[in-house]
Amino acid sequence: MPPPKQKTETPDPLDVPKAVVNRLSLYLRELRHLLRAGKTTISSSELGSLLGFTDAQVRKDLAYFGHFGHPGIGYRCEELINAIRSILGTDQEWTVAMVGIGNLGRALLGYRGFVDQGFQVVAAFDSNPEKLNGQIEEVPVYHIGRLTEVVRQHNIRLGLICVPAATAQNVADRLVEAGVAGIVNFAPVTLSLPEEISSVSVDLSTELEQLSFFVANREQPR
Amino acid sequence: MPPPKQKTETPDPLDVPKAVVNRLSLYLRELRHLLRAGKTTISSSELGSLLGFTDAQVRKDLAYFGHFGHPGIGYRCEELINAIRSILGTDQEWTVAMVGIGNLGRALLGYRGFVDQGFQVVAAFDSNPEKLNGQIEEVPVYHIGRLTEVVRQHNIRLGLICVPAATAQNVADRLVEAGVAGIVNFAPVTLSLPEEISSVSVDLSTELEQLSFFVANREQPR
Repeated sequence: MPPPKQKTETPDPLDVPKAVVNRLSLYLRELRHLLRAGKTTISSSELGSLLGFTDAQVRKDLAYFGHFGHPGIGYRCEELINAIRSILGTDQEWTVAMVGIGNLGRALLGYRGFVDQGFQVVAAFDSNPEKLNGQIEEVPVYHIGRLTEVVRQHNIRLGLICVPAATAQNVADRLVEAGVAGIVNFAPVTLSLPEEISSVSVDLSTELEQLSFFVANREQPR
Repeated sequence: MPPPKQKTETPDPLDVPKAVVNRLSLYLRELRHLLRAGKTTISSSELGSLLGFTDAQVRKDLAYFGHFGHPGIGYRCEELINAIRSILGTDQEWTVAMVGIGNLGRALLGYRGFVDQGFQVVAAFDSNPEKLNGQIEEVPVYHIGRLTEVVRQHNIRLGLICVPAATAQNVADRLVEAGVAGIVNFAPVTLSLPEEISSVSVDLSTELEQLSFFVANREQPR
């Protein structure tokens, strides 16, 4: 018989530190690898050590969202995967609009990880859709001028911005006006967005700069 | 006459919090936009407000590395750009090896931002280099079996891992053995690396999960 689940008061998810939410993603990724490798249960210390965290860190992070461990067993991988997916909101389908079909946009459209996680690019936009023959990777490509209309029509919830820095704010403003709830910004610029719009930024140059900082400073001991 | 520069004791750069180094990248990006737009000086409060930080935050971050402001003037954009580039190590050339030429690898090779920041991909590796006719975007493509030899020959300092999760650790081990000092990991897996190797990870699924968490929890107020 499974132990009785204790319902405790969980905090408002929006008050949870970003670093915790980030580690949830890492736990989820690791649990999936483990389950695929045939492992059905795992302890907090095993899970932590795979990621370089302590067992206390793992337990504390998960405690924000409820009780997931079983005495004498640890975590059941599949159960914890489902719980984390539900917390992260990736147990639902997310409709995505991609704006800008250059090199990066193309690569992202070909990236299986999106679909595997429930992110479905249902429309792409470019200022020159003709060059793409109206579709790419089975996703219809529209002229950027039709963004508001198409986003509303398909009730698209997330926007991916893959345009150059100079036009990114304009695209963001249009996506917000069209009604998206979240934006992933790949353009190397800080966007100004209304408070109710969630966003994440991915800037490859920034990542490389972080790396060069640490390598350069290791190589030149002061 | 410029005010005299005060030399103060700066901490070991490796003790500087990662969040500070990350914000340096954002300051740099913003300063470049400003300089391109013709602005030659800026105050800490102006710079901060463009990025959503306070002026105190800007001053505190920069103070880790020295004194950069001029009384009555603020920061000189070009001077601060050069200082931050030197701190981040992007004033030097970085030779890069890219391993895995799938969709993402191709997009990254076509990404101008790398070259603009001093990152030069000098060799690419794939298990099937023939399909690429030996080069892509003017970068020579070698069979993965030649990784150690080529990395050593060209004294390559950074490795970009764009292979699937299942082979990423193996590729990382080979890069380390060949002598790289830093790794950018695009594979959705946590790598186990020697302590002296610096690394950054970019996992697009993780970024999307962060976004879906915040959107999902805004849309379902608890």
